[in-house]
Amino acid sequence: MNTQDLRINGERLWQSLMELAQIGATPKGGVKRLTLTDLDKQGRDLVVSWGRQAGMSVTVDKIGNVFMRRAGRNPGQAPVMSGSHIDTQPTGGKFDGNYGVLAALEVVRTLNDHNIETDAPIEVAFWTNEEGSRFVPVMMGSGVFCGAFTLEHAYAAKDVDGKTVRDELERIGYLGTEEPGQHPIGAYFEAHIEQGPVLEDADKVIGVVPGVLGLSWYDCVVTGMEAHAGPTPMGLRKDALQVATRIMQEVVNIGNRYPPYGRGTVGMVQVFPNSRNVIPGEVKFSIDLRNVSSDLLDTMHQEILAFVDQTSRDSGLQISVDRVSYYPPCPFHPDCVGAVRRATAKLGYSNMEVVSGAGHDAIYTARLAPSGMIFVPCKDGISHNEIEDAKSEHLEAGCNVLLHAMLETAGVVNG
Amino acid sequence: MNTQDLRINGERLWQSLMELAQIGATPKGGVKRLTLTDLDKQGRDLVVSWGRQAGMSVTVDKIGNVFMRRAGRNPGQAPVMSGSHIDTQPTGGKFDGNYGVLAALEVVRTLNDHNIETDAPIEVAFWTNEEGSRFVPVMMGSGVFCGAFTLEHAYAAKDVDGKTVRDELERIGYLGTEEPGQHPIGAYFEAHIEQGPVLEDADKVIGVVPGVLGLSWYDCVVTGMEAHAGPTPMGLRKDALQVATRIMQEVVNIGNRYPPYGRGTVGMVQVFPNSRNVIPGEVKFSIDLRNVSSDLLDTMHQEILAFVDQTSRDSGLQISVDRVSYYPPCPFHPDCVGAVRRATAKLGYSNMEVVSGAGHDAIYTARLAPSGMIFVPCKDGISHNEIEDAKSEHLEAGCNVLLHAMLETAGVVNG
Repeated sequence: MNTQDLRINGERLWQSLMELAQIGATPKGGVKRLTLTDLDKQGRDLVVSWGRQAGMSVTVDKIGNVFMRRAGRNPGQAPVMSGSHIDTQPTGGKFDGNYGVLAALEVVRTLNDHNIETDAPIEVAFWTNEEGSRFVPVMMGSGVFCGAFTLEHAYAAKDVDGKTVRDELERIGYLGTEEPGQHPIGAYFEAHIEQGPVLEDADKVIGVVPGVLGLSWYDCVVTGMEAHAGPTPMGLRKDALQVATRIMQEVVNIGNRYPPYGRGTVGMVQVFPNSRNVIPGEVKFSIDLRNVSSDLLDTMHQEILAFVDQTSRDSGLQISVDRVSYYPPCPFHPDCVGAVRRATAKLGYSNMEVVSGAGHDAIYTARLAPSGMIFVPCKDGISHNEIEDAKSEHLEAGCNVLLHAMLETAGVVNG
Repeated sequence: MNTQDLRINGERLWQSLMELAQIGATPKGGVKRLTLTDLDKQGRDLVVSWGRQAGMSVTVDKIGNVFMRRAGRNPGQAPVMSGSHIDTQPTGGKFDGNYGVLAALEVVRTLNDHNIETDAPIEVAFWTNEEGSRFVPVMMGSGVFCGAFTLEHAYAAKDVDGKTVRDELERIGYLGTEEPGQHPIGAYFEAHIEQGPVLEDADKVIGVVPGVLGLSWYDCVVTGMEAHAGPTPMGLRKDALQVATRIMQEVVNIGNRYPPYGRGTVGMVQVFPNSRNVIPGEVKFSIDLRNVSSDLLDTMHQEILAFVDQTSRDSGLQISVDRVSYYPPCPFHPDCVGAVRRATAKLGYSNMEVVSGAGHDAIYTARLAPSGMIFVPCKDGISHNEIEDAKSEHLEAGCNVLLHAMLETAGVVNG
């Protein structure tokens, strides 16, 4: 068979997704399968059994990341890997993470069906605790793998009951022996639902992901003078909220000023004393700025600082703004982005570039190996929610793109 | 003695204020004497004993309002009354309310010192539960007196421990027999600290109070669409906070548009889900509009409704705005305002018009009899706070104005 005509089995992919979603299924149609719980063990065991049935060998590392390997013609060549995570949010859906793992498995099953041999080995991976709901930090398995933080740091993390990551890994039988990061990766692809509204809004099937937005988080505090709303004339007020709203609006203006990937969000606000007839004496709020390049994000950073400074001078109120988090933008490797783009074009799917606004394990693999992602639409852009939904034909399309991007990268012996 | 030269005893007034402030004194120099508590009873008993020592007869009505009467030459004439309240906020000061009661007492003491007889009787009043901290509604005693709500409604009010107003009145011995509202009033004057910054800012001693601001309170709810701050492009957002901040700014603009007495305040804000990386799906906030005339307040009311309507159409977001409270402006009687103005001029104190932004018992007496108020400066405009402070010479000046305004109104037999 000419591999150009090769297609995955969309029905099988869907059935596997639905079967895995039974483990931790919620009455509202979602999934609650928190990392390193009994349910996570059941999910892991199921996926591993499927991997073994597909002829793959299984390795587990010390942070519980699982790598399932389909041999290639050149055993010494670093594998072309694909995967994601199978842990979910407390009120999670069926597709977030799970799709990326089972799409990779479906690629292997398809290659098996047609006896396709690749030059490089193919690996299916799932990473421990991507969600971070039970243990922080998020993206723990891939983070330890790429050296973003240490194994000891991850081991010591505790859930609300005081149980540690290390103990729970051991308890469910996924405390492996391989040193994290020692597992070679030639290239990494991750298929994922978009978790945003862009593809659906533009009516496209495939999102080619050029990278992941960087973000800067800030805490801003405006200090005015608390006073009674009745007796205090407008001209004698130091209204912290009135001044804060100017900055809140500018945050959005800055996001709008750097399209298409600029984002400016105020998500959290606290007003003191928060009483109906008292002029607010203090307002604290969060600022979230994102963009696709470090230069743009830095420009946005400078602009908010300058605006706060000017607003403080104009109003005479003290305003502090502190950056509390920074993740640099993560552009994906041109080889991987190109492979996704070429596969999509070859398959004839409608497509567009969609940058990732959320974090994924691919951010961390990108530190060690060329990485790329494939997005498919999700209903109303909703994720981290039991009503998360996606169409079978979109999931199938994304998996076909994954298949051909991996084949191009791995090299096909009889292609 | 020519009553034109009559002056109150500022030192005695100050000493009485300090003595009353011992009852419920807080470590920070304030007073905690909640209505109808044991401490309130002690305070009431002390003021009543002072009243009796000054030769006054005492009447208590069914809601615990206390009237202390100094006879006039014409016993059938309705008394010229002055007073306020002696209950305090949980973290209250020494002067709010207490000054008005003890200034009225000082007027009587001064008349006694100089054997001045008035045509109309003079009465010193203190009203039950002006503060509303322990029992709602606020201004309870004067409210029942003027028929704003019923005695039964007030009696049934419970504190956090489930104790009722009626039981507590009985317990402390201030459940009187007189029917509220049956006590005649010829005219009513109330001296009070300003509880705002205007006099201090303008460096004036006396505030002639033309009336009390009316107010409209609203609850506003902006409904957008909660979404992840990363994956959601600016153009696809329904950011409830961004839209809410436009309205919040307009509230202040409306206050500024109707000087000198217009007020526009947003004091309370709730953002949902109030998470740093989630675009707010809903924002609730309060709106407080005030002005001195019904026409102006109605104009402001129409403007905020129109702005909300326009903002909803511009943004496509649903916005509700409901008026939850309305108190009409209360202009004081020209006779009383004139008496205060003439007394101030005669005494030569620097002065200005200062409208009251907060509620006072005089708002309710004004429904039954000509009423007026006299303001004196308080430090930094701060009240309802243990650091509330006022200067002895200002309190003395206000009391002298009260004396002469009352004398003019009551008529002096040998003046």
